[in-house]
This record gives sequence, structure tokens and C-alpha cells, in this order.
Amino acid sequence: MINIAEKNIKEPRITLLGAGPGDPDLITLKGIKALKTADVVLYDALVNEELLGYAPENAVKVYVGKRSGDHTYSQEAVNSLMIDYAVNYGHVVRLKGGDPFVFGRGFEELDFAASYSIPAQVIPGISSSIGVPGLQNIPVTHRGLSESFWVVTGTTASGKVSTDLYEAARSKATVIVLMGIRKLAEIVAIFKNEGKNKLPVAIIQNGSSANEQVAVGIVDTIVEIAEENKIASPALIVFGEVVSLHPKFQPIKEFYDIIAAEE
Amino acid sequence: MINIAEKNIKEPRITLLGAGPGDPDLITLKGIKALKTADVVLYDALVNEELLGYAPENAVKVYVGKRSGDHTYSQEAVNSLMIDYAVNYGHVVRLKGGDPFVFGRGFEELDFAASYSIPAQVIPGISSSIGVPGLQNIPVTHRGLSESFWVVTGTTASGKVSTDLYEAARSKATVIVLMGIRKLAEIVAIFKNEGKNKLPVAIIQNGSSANEQVAVGIVDTIVEIAEENKIASPALIVFGEVVSLHPKFQPIKEFYDIIAAEE
Repeated sequence: MINIAEKNIKEPRITLLGAGPGDPDLITLKGIKALKTADVVLYDALVNEELLGYAPENAVKVYVGKRSGDHTYSQEAVNSLMIDYAVNYGHVVRLKGGDPFVFGRGFEELDFAASYSIPAQVIPGISSSIGVPGLQNIPVTHRGLSESFWVVTGTTASGKVSTDLYEAARSKATVIVLMGIRKLAEIVAIFKNEGKNKLPVAIIQNGSSANEQVAVGIVDTIVEIAEENKIASPALIVFGEVVSLHPKFQPIKEFYDIIAAEE
Repeated sequence: MINIAEKNIKEPRITLLGAGPGDPDLITLKGIKALKTADVVLYDALVNEELLGYAPENAVKVYVGKRSGDHTYSQEAVNSLMIDYAVNYGHVVRLKGGDPFVFGRGFEELDFAASYSIPAQVIPGISSSIGVPGLQNIPVTHRGLSESFWVVTGTTASGKVSTDLYEAARSKATVIVLMGIRKLAEIVAIFKNEGKNKLPVAIIQNGSSANEQVAVGIVDTIVEIAEENKIASPALIVFGEVVSLHPKFQPIKEFYDIIAAEE
């Protein structure tokens, strides 16, 4: 009886929370505070489950994971669950990998909450697009090498590489491709087409996690290097001169300089 | 005597730490843990001073602030201080606004530490480029509106607008300009030149702080709107259809639709 009474007085509300790239210590303090007041946590595939430990023991924790190319829960199902739980339980924390608005379909969830007049707040997370290269000491910007960075999805709603990538490959920006590892050869071909054959490239799998893996090369060699290192999803790709600052790049650079001198 | 002995056994090390956009609760847990073990904190102008409270009471806290156009400490001076303090005190936390590698000159500091063989680690922060629009419910990406976002500096090393911005204005990406508010008219002119007169624009000052201010308009009107609202530095500018999702944009949109129908 007491439980039901408690339920009835709780106002429904939703928090879209960015969990960061994988290391559970990369969540924000604001995020931890939100989790501590959660009645329900709906969490994605790329979220570190250790974070659920911040939520009260009796909070409902529901896995609504979907990985690129393997949609187990539809977005519509997630939206409905979010509303149902908010109405019946109170504070729903929608815990999403990285930042909720970087290819996270966060705004669709915010919009859906608004259509039911349920108050919603957003708490940003460390986006893997910046944080994961950073943890590898690859700066997305660096004086003399890059004055901007461009973050593009490798998997659009239609399943194709974003057409923005064709423009990005032409630009001087550091280009970070998320969810693109399964289309690596296709993406690399776009850069080759722009004559960027010698542009440094890094691929980082499971960034910020204990099982992080890094492959470094240039546009002409990265597909082979990724295969040799068995790099797989989830991984992001960084194209740009800033990758030459990575310690693994220096020996490669000397090798390519020798080849270039012989040609 | 004990103090000197303690000093002598401490190994010098440096942590480049991203403080996030302003709200002190937007620092990461990993960042808080680093601050708790700091012997020295060197902090920038845009860092919330409340964060210094996580450092031990007897830690040395040094303000090395510089704002765009008002360089009180040179980068060289900051680099030297960082090394001197690490050698003499132990763990130096270099606390920087946003993320250390987003126009933060973080790699220069990392490189300088390496040249003295002082171990350094990087802890990413919430970059204002993503987090500040996000807190205003402006998603940097959204299905049907934007498949990518491009972050550009409004103030390069030479003091000029980045030439990348000319390409960015031509692209379909959401364009976020940091440190550009003092050159707003010049930046807006670049978008006008590309015929983007009706593109939605938002300017957010003091994002994530109690004194946050937002101005929303289109390329043709934003300079006037920013003046009316007395928007000043620090502020970022967001160009893109995603800005049309901001609640303040809806009444403007209806107004422009009426104007367009009459023309």
C-alpha cells in the first residue's frame, strides 16, 4: 500500500544523460546526481553498466540497447517505454553513450517527452568524438595543423555513409567519423578520391576502456593495418595531420619519408 | 623540515584536465579524483573557481588566465610555470575550460612536458561546442536536419577568422564557432556570401552558468538581435537548421513565413 501511495505522488520527469565514452569515471558529477534520484534507468548498449550502481538499489534498470546494424529495440519502443515508466514511476534517466545529441537521436526523445507534456532536461556527456582521440593524445585541433574539426556519421538513417563526408574529405578540418568502421574501405576511398593518400589516419576501438585498441597509418595503408589489428566495432576514425602527433605515427612517418625520398 | 622532505619524494607529473563549460557539476568524476591529488592547480579564466575546492586545502592554486584578445600570461610563461611547479611540488593539475584539445593549446603543454620527460595524462572535459547548445535543447545533429557538425575557431593564432569557416559556411554541417563573438558581423557576412541569409543562428553567452543568455535569429537578423540583447564574450555561435528546434525560434519562424508569403 505504501509503495502505491509513493508512486502516485511522484511527478513524471525525464533526464537525457550522456554517459561518456566508456570509462565510468568519465561521467559528470551532474550525471551522478541525476542517477542517484532515478526511479528508472533506461540504458544503451555502449553504456558502462558500472554506472547503474549510482542509481538507488530499488530503481528499475532496463537495457534498451541497439548497436549499429542490429536494432533490437526500435526508437519508437524506447520512446514509449520512457513515457510509460515516467508516468508510472517518476524520474526516468535515459542513459545514453557519449553525448545525447551526437548521433544519439536524443532530440527525438526530448520531442516525444514534450508531446506528452513531461518535463525533460539534458545533461551533456563527454562525446567520444573529442574525448577518445584526446585520451590517445591526439588533439582534434592544434596550431599549425588544424583550425577546426568536423564530426560525421558513417551510418545515416538510410544506412549509407553521410554525403557530408565527401565535403569533409575535401576540407582542411580534422575529420572524425563515428559508426563508420564497418564501411572503412568505402570511407577511405572517398579520401583517396581527393588525393589525400598520405593523410594520417587513426582508428580507436573501445576508446577509454580497458580493452582499448589503436591502429595508426595513412589513407593508403589504414585498411590493411585495421585488418591486421582486427579492429572492429565500436570504433571511431580520425583523419588529419593531428594524427601525426601520435607516438605510434613517428616510426611510420620516417618510413614514408624514406620511400618518398627514393621515388 | 618535514615539508621539504615530503617535497623531495614527490614524483613530478602533470594532468591536463578539462573543466567543462562553466557549471561546476559538469566536471567528470575522473577530473574530481585528479584534483583531489593535486599539489598545484594552474587554472584558466573560463574555469569555475568552485572547482578549486576539490583540491587539498594546502595545494597551490595559481590563476594563469588569458582571454581572447587579452593575453595576460603568455603560453610560454604557462608552460614554464607548469614544469617548475611539477619539479618542485609534484602533481600539477592544469585545469582548462571545456576540453583541453578544443582550441585549448593543450597539445603544446603536453609536448612541453614531454620535452622535460615529465609524465602527463589527459582527462577530457565537456566541450562547450557540443554541451552548451545541448543544454539549450539544440542538438548538434538531428535526423533530417544535420548529419554532421563542424567546430571552427573565430580567432586563429594570427587573430583572424579561420579560413575553414569559408568552407564551413558552404557545407550542410551544423557549424559551431567558438571565440567568434567579437567578429560576429564578419562571420555572418561569410554565410550571407553563400546565400545562407535565412539559415537559423543561435548565440549563447556564459553557457551552462547562472547568467546564461541566448539570442536566436537568422543570418540576416542575428547581428541586430545580438546587439539588442547585449550579447558579449564569452559566447559561441551555432549556425544550422537544428537551431530551428529551439523554442525561441518558433515565433520567429512564423514571422518569416508570413514575410515570405507576402513577397
